[in-house]
Amino acid sequence: MKSDTYLPAPPPPRVQNECPNLDLTAVRHRVDRRLEEFLDAKAEAAHARHLPPEVTSLLRDFVLNGGKRVRPLLCAVGWCAAGGDPQPPEYVIQAAASLEMFHAFALIHDDVMDGALLRRGTPTVHRALAATYSHLRDPDRFGEHSAILLGDLAHAWSDELLHSAGIPDGRAAAVRTVTNAMRSEVMFGQYLDLLATGPPQDDADAALRIVRYKTARYTVERPLHLGAALAGAEPDLLTSLSAYALPIGEAFQLRDDVLGTFGDPRETGKPCLDDLRDGKGTLLVALAMQHADEEQRRTLRALIGSPGLGEEDAERIRHLLCVTGARAAVEQLIGVRREQAQQALDQANLTPAATAALQEIALTSTVRTS
Amino acid sequence: MKSDTYLPAPPPPRVQNECPNLDLTAVRHRVDRRLEEFLDAKAEAAHARHLPPEVTSLLRDFVLNGGKRVRPLLCAVGWCAAGGDPQPPEYVIQAAASLEMFHAFALIHDDVMDGALLRRGTPTVHRALAATYSHLRDPDRFGEHSAILLGDLAHAWSDELLHSAGIPDGRAAAVRTVTNAMRSEVMFGQYLDLLATGPPQDDADAALRIVRYKTARYTVERPLHLGAALAGAEPDLLTSLSAYALPIGEAFQLRDDVLGTFGDPRETGKPCLDDLRDGKGTLLVALAMQHADEEQRRTLRALIGSPGLGEEDAERIRHLLCVTGARAAVEQLIGVRREQAQQALDQANLTPAATAALQEIALTSTVRTS
Repeated sequence: MKSDTYLPAPPPPRVQNECPNLDLTAVRHRVDRRLEEFLDAKAEAAHARHLPPEVTSLLRDFVLNGGKRVRPLLCAVGWCAAGGDPQPPEYVIQAAASLEMFHAFALIHDDVMDGALLRRGTPTVHRALAATYSHLRDPDRFGEHSAILLGDLAHAWSDELLHSAGIPDGRAAAVRTVTNAMRSEVMFGQYLDLLATGPPQDDADAALRIVRYKTARYTVERPLHLGAALAGAEPDLLTSLSAYALPIGEAFQLRDDVLGTFGDPRETGKPCLDDLRDGKGTLLVALAMQHADEEQRRTLRALIGSPGLGEEDAERIRHLLCVTGARAAVEQLIGVRREQAQQALDQANLTPAATAALQEIALTSTVRTS
Repeated sequence: MKSDTYLPAPPPPRVQNECPNLDLTAVRHRVDRRLEEFLDAKAEAAHARHLPPEVTSLLRDFVLNGGKRVRPLLCAVGWCAAGGDPQPPEYVIQAAASLEMFHAFALIHDDVMDGALLRRGTPTVHRALAATYSHLRDPDRFGEHSAILLGDLAHAWSDELLHSAGIPDGRAAAVRTVTNAMRSEVMFGQYLDLLATGPPQDDADAALRIVRYKTARYTVERPLHLGAALAGAEPDLLTSLSAYALPIGEAFQLRDDVLGTFGDPRETGKPCLDDLRDGKGTLLVALAMQHADEEQRRTLRALIGSPGLGEEDAERIRHLLCVTGARAAVEQLIGVRREQAQQALDQANLTPAATAALQEIALTSTVRTS
């Protein structure tokens, strides 16, 4: 049993979006509908050529069942912040949808690399493929390899969505600059992440670097920039958005790391052992290594990243992450970064609609349980 | 020792390119230079941000050291066939280079899936990465996973090359139609290939279907279409190019399959055991299974796709591929397809430059030893 001390604090009541003009729920529905139409068309095309239906149906299930749509929503907010119509035109919705398709690619490959079994509460794509083809000689291998291909297809299709969105000619180059940067950054971040995975290290800077590349830029800054670029924003606005995005993105990932170790799997939809078993190079672990005494450090080294790690061992690690002060330090940093983001927002002088939306996102992404 | 009967016939003397206007060697050099510049810029950008240098250096080595540049050259030929200037402008060269970058992505992922050790005579990317990080806890796993990421980066960068090429606005949509189709087709082809890998099957149609998706469309038809679309070709021309491309592409892959089993590794740069050990679902194997007697079929089933397959077993399989008539039938089909491609060329009424180039490509791609 996990003790109550490890559970995150309950979220405060949600702030109402004060600007009725930017309806994020409506944006989300439109993005989902666009993804659905696109994937339905792909399924029909595959059917017409007698290609295996599971390729598109698995991708469809993965993309449409669940996910917070953080990146498409931030894209819509960036659009709005740059003065775009609060009812975004279809090309903005489609560009936002391309971010979600890209994210599906990133997650499918991530899950193969992590050997993850569950995602959003259901089997990961490579496990679903292995189960579908359980009669093959080596279904696990087939599952991993075909999931790499499904991810590749999602990558290609994200590009297709973006470039067929009908972005006005004068803005296409600025949009490409953003999406090109985003793609390289997330791959480098993921590479740094792979390098840091294994026995626990005490390098907090390295841990934070991964957070910045993998999440702060990829999940928050670039989606906002994409929306702003779609609306023809000046460079100054992109800088203002970064001043908000980088700290809040860092806070978002640090919250994710806390949930990945201390979260309730029934709420997060994924096990809270995996990060510890894989030896993920989080700030939590780096700080614990820094502040642990010799014996505690030995214990952390023996347990973190050990393939056979069980719940009892995980509980010992969680205990050490708490008593070394690592968890409290990360929670404090989340607070500091949220504060920095708030200050950046105060100075940015955005439209009330954009400010309200970014405030809500700041709150719900850093104080959350799933 | 491999007996001489298994070696392919020596190539006939190369036909001189009869049209001095379309200089494929010059195109190749320009494509290579463009790739080099692009990758150098990426390496500099990574250096400036203190990102790990091996990511770009490995990709640079992989892309620039070797490879036949079949797809970029066909793109230039397609351009020329549609009336483009025999000295293609820079945007055609860059679009052609994007095909090579895409192919690097496809090969890197392919090699991970096949567990291949060598490519172009040197260690595959995942093996090179495992060797670079041999001190990690599980270097093999790191090598495979980081190679997936390097492949993903090449995929993103192929897109970047294409979309920043400066393709004239009026032609961009037609170009996208071709590249979108190409990407989906090669992924589906690769998926069918994975499904067919394992114990030998006697389904020749299934084997030919993989050939068509994975190679005929991806390697020949779509690169020609891309070049033609860049030159603003009418749909009729695309149809004529397909009539040449599909048979010659099939012949190209069938030649590749023959070399993959009977070729000289010193010439092909890759082992000639892997296809048999992996149980690749080639037409060679499907035909052998169809025409084998009961005992031969048992032997093929016992050996093909067996992970411990050695040279002696491979030699037994090669013998059966010959005595069942499978090898001869495949050689005959290569001849038939080359003939069909020639007839299509005769009827296509292309410019002499394009016709001469396609004739040369037809010859060198189907009668080759590497």
